[in-house]
Formats: sequence, structure tokens, C-alpha cells
Amino acid sequence: MEKRLKYAMVGGGKGSFIGPIHRMAIRMDDLADLVDGCYSHGEDWRDLLRRVKGVADFIAVCTPNDSHYGIAKAALEAGFDVMCEKPLSLTLAEATELERLARRKRRVLGIPFTYSGFPMLKLARDLVAKGELGRIDKVVLEYLQGSFRKIDFSMPLDRRNAWKMDPRRSGPSCVVADIGVHGFHMIEYVTGLEVKSLLADLSSFAPGNRLDDDASILMRLGRSAKAAMVVSKVATGEENGVRLRVYGDKASLYWNQEAPNYLSVKSPFEPERIYKRRAPYMEAASAASVRATRTPAGHHEGFIEAFANIYDEFCAAVRDRKPHDFPGAREGVRTMRLVEAALKSDKSGNVWVKV
Amino acid sequence: MEKRLKYAMVGGGKGSFIGPIHRMAIRMDDLADLVDGCYSHGEDWRDLLRRVKGVADFIAVCTPNDSHYGIAKAALEAGFDVMCEKPLSLTLAEATELERLARRKRRVLGIPFTYSGFPMLKLARDLVAKGELGRIDKVVLEYLQGSFRKIDFSMPLDRRNAWKMDPRRSGPSCVVADIGVHGFHMIEYVTGLEVKSLLADLSSFAPGNRLDDDASILMRLGRSAKAAMVVSKVATGEENGVRLRVYGDKASLYWNQEAPNYLSVKSPFEPERIYKRRAPYMEAASAASVRATRTPAGHHEGFIEAFANIYDEFCAAVRDRKPHDFPGAREGVRTMRLVEAALKSDKSGNVWVKV
Amino acid sequence: MEKRLKYAMVGGGKGSFIGPIHRMAIRMDDLADLVDGCYSHGEDWRDLLRRVKGVADFIAVCTPNDSHYGIAKAALEAGFDVMCEKPLSLTLAEATELERLARRKRRVLGIPFTYSGFPMLKLARDLVAKGELGRIDKVVLEYLQGSFRKIDFSMPLDRRNAWKMDPRRSGPSCVVADIGVHGFHMIEYVTGLEVKSLLADLSSFAPGNRLDDDASILMRLGRSAKAAMVVSKVATGEENGVRLRVYGDKASLYWNQEAPNYLSVKSPFEPERIYKRRAPYMEAASAASVRATRTPAGHHEGFIEAFANIYDEFCAAVRDRKPHDFPGAREGVRTMRLVEAALKSDKSGNVWVKV
Amino acid sequence: MEKRLKYAMVGGGKGSFIGPIHRMAIRMDDLADLVDGCYSHGEDWRDLLRRVKGVADFIAVCTPNDSHYGIAKAALEAGFDVMCEKPLSLTLAEATELERLARRKRRVLGIPFTYSGFPMLKLARDLVAKGELGRIDKVVLEYLQGSFRKIDFSMPLDRRNAWKMDPRRSGPSCVVADIGVHGFHMIEYVTGLEVKSLLADLSSFAPGNRLDDDASILMRLGRSAKAAMVVSKVATGEENGVRLRVYGDKASLYWNQEAPNYLSVKSPFEPERIYKRRAPYMEAASAASVRATRTPAGHHEGFIEAFANIYDEFCAAVRDRKPHDFPGAREGVRTMRLVEAALKSDKSGNVWVKV
Repeated sequence: MEKRLKYAMVGGGKGSFIGPIHRMAIRMDDLADLVDGCYSHGEDWRDLLRRVKGVADFIAVCTPNDSHYGIAKAALEAGFDVMCEKPLSLTLAEATELERLARRKRRVLGIPFTYSGFPMLKLARDLVAKGELGRIDKVVLEYLQGSFRKIDFSMPLDRRNAWKMDPRRSGPSCVVADIGVHGFHMIEYVTGLEVKSLLADLSSFAPGNRLDDDASILMRLGRSAKAAMVVSKVATGEENGVRLRVYGDKASLYWNQEAPNYLSVKSPFEPERIYKRRAPYMEAASAASVRATRTPAGHHEGFIEAFANIYDEFCAAVRDRKPHDFPGAREGVRTMRLVEAALKSDKSGNVWVKV
Repeated sequence: MEKRLKYAMVGGGKGSFIGPIHRMAIRMDDLADLVDGCYSHGEDWRDLLRRVKGVADFIAVCTPNDSHYGIAKAALEAGFDVMCEKPLSLTLAEATELERLARRKRRVLGIPFTYSGFPMLKLARDLVAKGELGRIDKVVLEYLQGSFRKIDFSMPLDRRNAWKMDPRRSGPSCVVADIGVHGFHMIEYVTGLEVKSLLADLSSFAPGNRLDDDASILMRLGRSAKAAMVVSKVATGEENGVRLRVYGDKASLYWNQEAPNYLSVKSPFEPERIYKRRAPYMEAASAASVRATRTPAGHHEGFIEAFANIYDEFCAAVRDRKPHDFPGAREGVRTMRLVEAALKSDKSGNVWVKV
Repeated sequence: MEKRLKYAMVGGGKGSFIGPIHRMAIRMDDLADLVDGCYSHGEDWRDLLRRVKGVADFIAVCTPNDSHYGIAKAALEAGFDVMCEKPLSLTLAEATELERLARRKRRVLGIPFTYSGFPMLKLARDLVAKGELGRIDKVVLEYLQGSFRKIDFSMPLDRRNAWKMDPRRSGPSCVVADIGVHGFHMIEYVTGLEVKSLLADLSSFAPGNRLDDDASILMRLGRSAKAAMVVSKVATGEENGVRLRVYGDKASLYWNQEAPNYLSVKSPFEPERIYKRRAPYMEAASAASVRATRTPAGHHEGFIEAFANIYDEFCAAVRDRKPHDFPGAREGVRTMRLVEAALKSDKSGNVWVKV
Repeated sequence: MEKRLKYAMVGGGKGSFIGPIHRMAIRMDDLADLVDGCYSHGEDWRDLLRRVKGVADFIAVCTPNDSHYGIAKAALEAGFDVMCEKPLSLTLAEATELERLARRKRRVLGIPFTYSGFPMLKLARDLVAKGELGRIDKVVLEYLQGSFRKIDFSMPLDRRNAWKMDPRRSGPSCVVADIGVHGFHMIEYVTGLEVKSLLADLSSFAPGNRLDDDASILMRLGRSAKAAMVVSKVATGEENGVRLRVYGDKASLYWNQEAPNYLSVKSPFEPERIYKRRAPYMEAASAASVRATRTPAGHHEGFIEAFANIYDEFCAAVRDRKPHDFPGAREGVRTMRLVEAALKSDKSGNVWVKV
């Protein structure tokens, strides 16, 4: 058993969705003890950072978007490692600054792009890397939520989502910054290719919303591959519809977050293959995928486990100061770069923008 | 029992995929007798038209794209009703001419956009028309095939597909004209909205192919709705992956051609509803859907039945010279208009093109 | 093109479910022309047999159960080949007599156990025969319908089902004779093993029903295999839930009639394989399966096509007087033998009955 | 936040599947701290009980079946509350004794029949209790594993499963006692009906196995309902195939553990309804189901979360000494009673045995 770390949390208090997820994920593998926290708006997180100086190994930042940059910056400067919720910042410039700061201070900066913590997405990445799909030509990614169709501003549970429509809290982008970043990250994580340019068409369909709540984005990736991504918060009836399709010239893969323990691989010349988490053949297919599991095949693992996998790798880095398989400052910058490109493309009339 | 008609066929001979489908579809409901045909390249279809003059009620045109216009034109001029394979022509100008000709000659011109013959797509159209989805905001349509990944030019079965890559036979577009037109038609059929402008990004991924075999197309529809469509012939491992999602502000629907007897309707405030072909509640939901079925609920119907539904309505029009629920000249022109817009958008650097 | 046959039909008139299916199935591949019929109760089918003597090649019997035996017997004696709806008769003795009669008169006797006409069930049979599953240990078959939950005796459509509860029309068994026979046939068809003994527990759950409408049946097959079958007409909400699972010591297979174009094969040491109708690899896996298809992979085929496959093979036998791949007198006798065993087991307190 | 408890564990050490699950489940909601353990065969668990006397609130028993009774008995007698793995004992007599002992000592005895911890199974129970299915007529339950097809006795991971075939460790039953008990529990939990009698047919298909590894069991429940259950460890290719179907005279429900966040409800007169964990309408449908969730709709929860739900309720009882919604001594006795009946039925030639 590895040494248990200590951490403090900013945000993630009562009514928060993501705060409890962080705490459960950290407890799942007994990675760290929560030593202190600043959970409400009234408190000053600077006091917290002072209190846990020399005590906490890392700070988990679970606040709305507008304070990510400030808190992460202060925490890094104070010498803490940091796990910061996505998006890393409101602007690319801030993200870049945080990346440099982390490098200069030799601090670990993690960002829970949860989907790359799913075992079957690690398998996807490994199958692509081994060439099982051949040359990647096309990626189709949907991340469709209907959450903005459910908001009733008189309800406390709903109000906690309403800040996402507020430019002051959410920043210049809503849906692209909130879930589009997951899409960007998944595409680059699984294919190993970078987005080189993109063309975005953003919409605001929810009544009263001035920020983007729906987007269609076309991308050119490295090695002449292309991608099409649709993200939405007004996709009525969708819950968390993340569906990834990657088409190579030999085979394709399909992963659906709503059936996360499976990965489908299709090619014309043999039956569709359904890989299943932790089946006997998985060790050979993707050792990383098997390491990222806790229960036998057939016993479903889900979101919290994937989150815990991100934390496992992050905490390993906190302990041994070496690179591990989790999204960090680089991914934070990449995704913010793509968010800014999307905003620019849309404002310029849906033209291609180099990244 | 209605009077059985008589028809003749051009194309659709040995090795053809679609010719036998036409014949089976027509036989299914005992609609018409095949009285003559011109099945091979050596024969002259003009001879056929002369032979069946005064005998055949309609001509079924099942040749490759480049001869649709010529045959349909001659047949209409000779006074036949015509069922012509899609795309109606190689150019919008030709399609428009055929539409005018059909109107002038008071001939019935049908085009088998098969998917609107599926009972559950009729249900989709009817649910939208009744307002069950509310205002339509976004449509996402995938039509993904991997057929170009299977072509082995030494194989006869494969060779019959190869003409699709040949600009002389296929025309200026491959994937958009071949299956994109189905997508355009489905979107307009189900939503009742017209595509007002589009932005297309076409690709040629198959080795040696100079025509488009993959496309991502963004659309603006009437009433401020938007659509995103991905069509491909290089989506390795896909067979005939038609998936339609329509998002309204009250509910959404999902139809997957590979499970064609179901339609899913989702809204946040009640469990997802799976409508099933010809279930007891279907008569109230969509009488047109029930009329388009032949077997009890639970006994699957598929492509040939959908095709037969198109012919049922077409033959009704041939008999009574009134409008019926099948795609015709108007849809042929609409889809060609969108094909040309897509080609223009792509050549102009993926810009918006008004339709 | 094979010579088109001629046939006459008894039963299958207005309001019949299965009569139109026979006619559509026969027309699909242009197998035979319907020359005459006796569709209503008022007419005497003996007159029909006289009228079509020397004209019709075969008689299709689509009446309720109680008249199968009489009509089939008369037709065979008159020298016709016969396609007779299941169950072949009300008693095993009658079925045996028909089998002998057909043999003596050298007539072809077919029974549309439709499921063995599905391409993917032919694949299932072929995979088992090739040993891909290893030694068969266990079969689990569900055939669950909820039709008796829908009966409203004031409705004409419903009334046409009500005869199934009437011992005079339906015979001594309802659910076992009506759909259990399909289950028995599928088990023997796919595994190539015979049921050696069975233990049945029958129930009557529908109000007022005195016949069996639900059954659980345990079976011992050849080579020490076992089977469990659940059939029902009171499985509320089920439409035609035929689900077959066959477990061998190397692999297992799963087929679901409600997604009939797929067959799943699972073994612990490789990903689940989903075979798809008419995919490129299918010719090697099961040539019989490919021959039993009409459309390319991805274009769904269903019940009518499966029915047509039965007729294709039957008509081939009618033409060439040789054995073909369709269920006939032998299967009619086997299934009636199992129906009688099930009734006997249930009446004796659910004990094992040798077959 | 509730007071954190203290617990010690017997068994569940290196190579154990279930030990880590207990620990993760307990940590998930921060229920208790592990203060001591006896993880290997060499150690004496009596020493552990002495060491943690006055310190631990409860003992988690994660050993093979043969020691459950002894450890649980000693722990209860020493005044600990106990969470004991299933089956509670090797014999019904032992289970009954433990139930009496727990009552006499006023100790909480829990048994992790995990499936009743799944939110959607709580919904199932609540829908049945509210009468949404009407009168329950038939239950069909499959619990199919292929684990015995994977055993390679040279592999450590496999060896840990081999004890299940050893009568000294596993007791007189293998598959019925190991997973059949889950099935019995689910049937009674969801329907609220008791099994009154059963008829079992057990098999030993795995090479060298003398215990049951496959079983088909027919049951008569209260209020004239019936059930059929198939459980297996030789269902090649299955992972953890728990599928429950409950048919009432108004509607039916279906739950599949391999897609655990959904519950389907079907009736003939409206579209199939798919309930989803924690959707907005779930609070009204089943408040207990919502309380048993941790993440928003669409973010999958699985086995560990269900296990944690069992522990949540158990720990609540440990704290407040009141009844809560978790399986305990009563369920341990019920399931052992059914295991003994199944063994007796099978040995007596598959006859009905009263429970």
C-alpha cells in the first residue's frame, strides 16, 4: 500500500455535483485524507491555503470556472500540487501561464478529464497506438446533454447549474468550455493526433442564454485525419451522451459512455468484436486498461471509478514526481486553445481557424 | 384488391443490388407485373420504351447515376409514369427539367428515398408535426457506410460498386449524391423544415478515389433550427449506419436504421419511451405508420418492406393521379439542389452557401 | 429463373395474420402463383381441392389448428404437396399419420417453423455443427408473448386470436402447441440434438382461459445436454420475444428474434463476436445463411424474408422432389410428440416424461 | 455527516475478489475505518476478535463459505455487529442458529446480496409494491456466469476460484449456494412474494466438478405466482449475466445487471418506458432509488456503488439499532432454506419440495 497523501479542497461544498465525486474518487483507493476545505463562497480560500501550508500535499479545486485560474495559481505558487476542475481557466493566456508556473515550480497540475480515466478509453488509445485501426481518417464525437432543458430556476438543484449560463462565472464559452473540452481531449487522447485547425458553429438555444449551448465543430487533425464533433446542453432528453467513433482504414472503434464497460471494434472482414472490461484477453490488448479496474468482468464500473483512475495516476505523480497517465497542464492548455479557436471561428462567420 | 399495374425496368439486371429490390418490393403487395426489361448495357433502352408503349403503366429506372436523366426524360416524354433511382440526375438543372417535364406531362415521378418508407420514420414525422417535440432546434444525422473499405477490384461483387468512384458514371459527387441525398431527404421529411443554407467539408479518403467519399455538412434549417450531418463510405466496419436524432425544446427522437422497428422519444421529465411498430398504441400515434406495416408487432420488417411502402404510395398515385406519401420530383430537385450547394461550399473553402 | 409453381390456399382470408404472410413470402421470390382459395368458414375446402386438382402444385393450409389434420390429409391423398401451418395436428397420432401418408404418397409436406428460415439461425446451426461451440451443455430458450394481455373480445382484431383459448379450435394445448413448438424446433434445429425427455409446468393465467398460456419446460437432450424453455402468452408487454442461448464448453451463442440480423458468439478468451447477416466473412461461416438473404449487409431483413426462405426450400423440393432445408413432416411429428409429452408431464405433477 | 464507525475484517486478503470490494464500498461514503484484519489462512481470527473487542463496531467476514458460520457466530457472541458474505452458512440449521443468536444478542447481521443495493432494483421493488405491474404472475431470472470455463489451475487468479468446487470449502452446493442465493433474494425482494415450493434440476458440467455448476429451478410463489430461474457457472462467455423479468397482469419489468442504470417497464398499451437512474421523474417513482445514488443521471454507477448502498443501510442500523433497507439474517435464512430445498428436490428426482 502506497503512503496516503493529504489534501484540501476549495469549492465542492453543499449542493455541488463534482466536489463529492472528487472526495469519493480519492477515498476509493484510499489515496489521500481530506485535511481541510473552503466549501462556501463566504470563506476566503487564501486562508485555507495558509492553514494547510506544510500539511496538505495537494489542493483540489472544485469551484465554478471563473476562480479556477486564481486559485490554481495561488496554490501552485504556494508550492502545492493541484487538481483543478476543467476548464483550467477562462482564457488560453491564463492556462498557458498556469502551465508555465507549474513547470517552473515543478508542481503537478492535474485536470480531471474523466473520460480518459475509463478503462475502455485506455483500450481505445492502445488499440489505435498498436495500429489495429490502421491510418485514422475520421473521428465522430457526440457529447450531448439536455441539462439546460431541465432548469427550473425556482429549484435549488437547478440553480446550481444556472451559473453555467452566466458569462461572469462561466467565461466567454459555456458548452464548448464545459463539455466540448472533454471532447477535444478524448479525440487527442485516443487518436494521438493533434487538432490543427477547426471550424465552429455555435448556437444559443436555451431561453435567455447568451452563451453557446450547442455547437457543431469540424476539425482537421494531424496526418490528414478529420473530425466532426457535436456538443450540446439543449439536446433534450439526453443525459450524458458521450459517443466516440474512430474510423481507420483497417478498422473502427465505438465507445458509448452510457455503456462504458464495452468497446466495439468493427472491420469488414470479421465479426464486430465487443471488448469487455477486464476480460481474460484484456491484459494482452491493453495492460493499462486492466490496471484501471477494480472488479471482475461483468461487474460494472462507472464514473466514480474513472475519476478515481485519474486520481490514482495523479497521486502517483505527486508521490514520485514522474509522469503518469493523467491529463494535466498540457491538456489544460490544449483544450483552452481549442475553445478559443472555436469562439474565434464562430465570431468570424464559421471559418477555419488554425490552432 | 386494387388493379394490378404493368411496368418495365431499365437496368437492375445481373449483379445489381437495387434491381431485385424494386422487383421484390413491387411483388410484396402484388402491385404490378413486370412486362419487359432492358437489363444490360448492350441493349438500347429506347427500344424497350417503344416496345412497352401502351402496355406498361410505369418504368422503373435502376441504372447507374449517369443515365437517370436521359431515361427518365425519355420515359416521361413517352407518357410513362416513372420510378427513378436516386440521385435523380447528375445536376440540379437536369433535375429541375425533369420536374417541369413531369408536371407538364402530368406524369407521376417517384424516387425511392427508402427511409421515408419505414413505418417508424413516418411516426417520427407525425410526432414532430403534432408538436410532441416542441420547437425543433437541432438535428444530428449520421449515414455511415464502410463499403469503400471492402472493394476488391478483382471481385465481381465489388466491381459493381466501383462505378460509384467514376465521375463519368457517378457524376461530380459520390457520397453526397449517393447517400447524402437520403440524409437531406430524411431531415426535411421528418422535421417539415427546409434546409436554407449549408456548409460542407468533403474528403476523398479511399485510395485512388477522386470523388467525395466522406462529408461533414452543417445546415441551417427553417425556423432557426440547425443540423449536422456526417456521411461516409469509408467508415470502416459500418454497414448501413443511418442514425437520426431530432432535438426539440420539449422532447427528442432517435431512429436507427439498424433497429428499424423502434423509435425512441426522450424528454427529461418522463422515462424514455420506445415506440414499436404496430403496437396497440400506434394507431393513435401515427395511422400512417400502421398502414405501412404488414406483420404484427414483434415480427420484424425491414428494407424491402420500406421499399414496398414507397411503391404502394407511388402505385396509388399512378392509379388515381392524386398526391400520395412518397418522394417524387420535388424531393429529387430538393436533394440535387443540396448536393450542388455542398459541392460549391466545399470548393469555396467550406463556406455557407444559400440554397 | 426457376419455373413458377401454382398453389391454392385454405384459410388465410380477411383478418388472418398468417395468410397474407404466406402469400407475401411466396411472391417475394416469385415462387408460385395463387390460383384459387377457400378463405372463409362458409366455403367447403373439399370443393377447392376438387377445383384445383391437376392445376395447383401445392396447397397452403392457414386455418386454425383443428382443421390442419383433415385438410392436410385430404390434400395429400389427392396428390398435392402441402405447406401446413403449425401445429401440424391436434394430436401426435394425427401427425404421425400425416407423416406416413406423405411418405407413402411421396408428397412434400412443409411446416413453416419460420425461425429456422432466419439466416442467422442457419448460421447458429452451422457454427454448432462445425464444433465452434464445443460440446453443447445447456440451452436456454425464451419465447415470450404478451398477446393474451391485449385481448378485448369486443374488438374484431382481438377476436381473431380468441380461438386460441378454445380447446375445440386450438386442441388440448394452447401456448405449447402454438409457440412452444417453435421453441422445440429451434432447439433441435440449432443443436442437432434431440429432446429425450422433458418435465413441464403449465399454467393458465389469462382470465377465463382453461388451456395453458404459460409454460416452463426442462429438457434432457442427446449427449447429456440440458435445456430450459419458458414460453408464454401472458408475458405482458412482450411482443414476440424469442431469445435463444446455446452454451457449449468452448463458446456460446445468442440470438434474439427482435434483432434478427445479428448473432452473438461469446467465449472467455476473445471479445464477443457479433456476426451480421451477409457480411463479407459470412460466406465462409455459413454459406446457407448467405443464400438465405436478399439485401446487402446493414439493410434489414425480417419475418417475411425468413418465411420466404422456408418457401424457397419447400418449392425447390416441390420442383425436384429432393430433400431441402425446410421443416417438414418429421419436424411436425417431433414437435407434436413434445407437446404431448409436455401435457402428460404437467398432468402427472410435473414429472419427467420420456419422448 | 454521520459518525464514522470502526470495523475489522476476516479474510479478503491478497488475491481476494470480494475483500477489496467491501473496503472500497465502506470508504465510498466514508462509513467506517478499518482498524484491524485477519487476512490469511495462517492467522487465527479468534485473536483478531479479541484484539478489536471494544474497538470495532462491526466485523466484515469475507472468507470462503465453510468458515462463515463459525466466524459470524463467534463475532455475534462477542457482541459485534457482523456483515457476513453469502451464503450465510453451509446449512440451513446454521443459518437459523445465527439468526436466533443475532436476535438474542440484539446484534445487526448483514449479508451483501449486492443486487438489492442497485438503485434500479429498488425502483423495481417500489413499482411492484405500488401495483404498477398489477398482480404478479411470472418471474424469469437468469444468473449466468461462465467462470468455470475460464479456470486454469496453474494460474493464481484462477486458483482462488477453485475452492468453489471443493465440497469442504463450498459446502454441499456450489452454484446454487454461490449465486442462486442472489437469484432467490432478488425474486423475493422485488416481488414481495415468498417462494413456497420449488423443483430443481442441478447439473455438474465442468470437468472434475462434483458439485452443482448449473441449475434450472421452477418455483411457486405466494399468490399463485410462478418463477423460473436458470443459474450457471458454465455458461461459457457470460460474465455476470443477471437478468430479471417480472410479468404482472398490467405490465412487466426487465432489469439487466450488465446495463444496471436502466429499468424497462412494458405494457401493451403504451410505449416501453426506460427508467434511468436519478432522472428528474425518479424521485416520484422511487425515493429509495434516488437516495441510493451519488452521481447525476447519465454518469454510470455500478457494482461498488451498489455494495456501498448495502453498507450505508447496514451502518445506519449499526448506529441507530433500527431496521433499514439491507439484507440480513432473515434473508440469510430464507436463501439457505431455498438452497436446501433445491438440493433435496434434485436428489429426489426433481420433485416439488415445500419450503
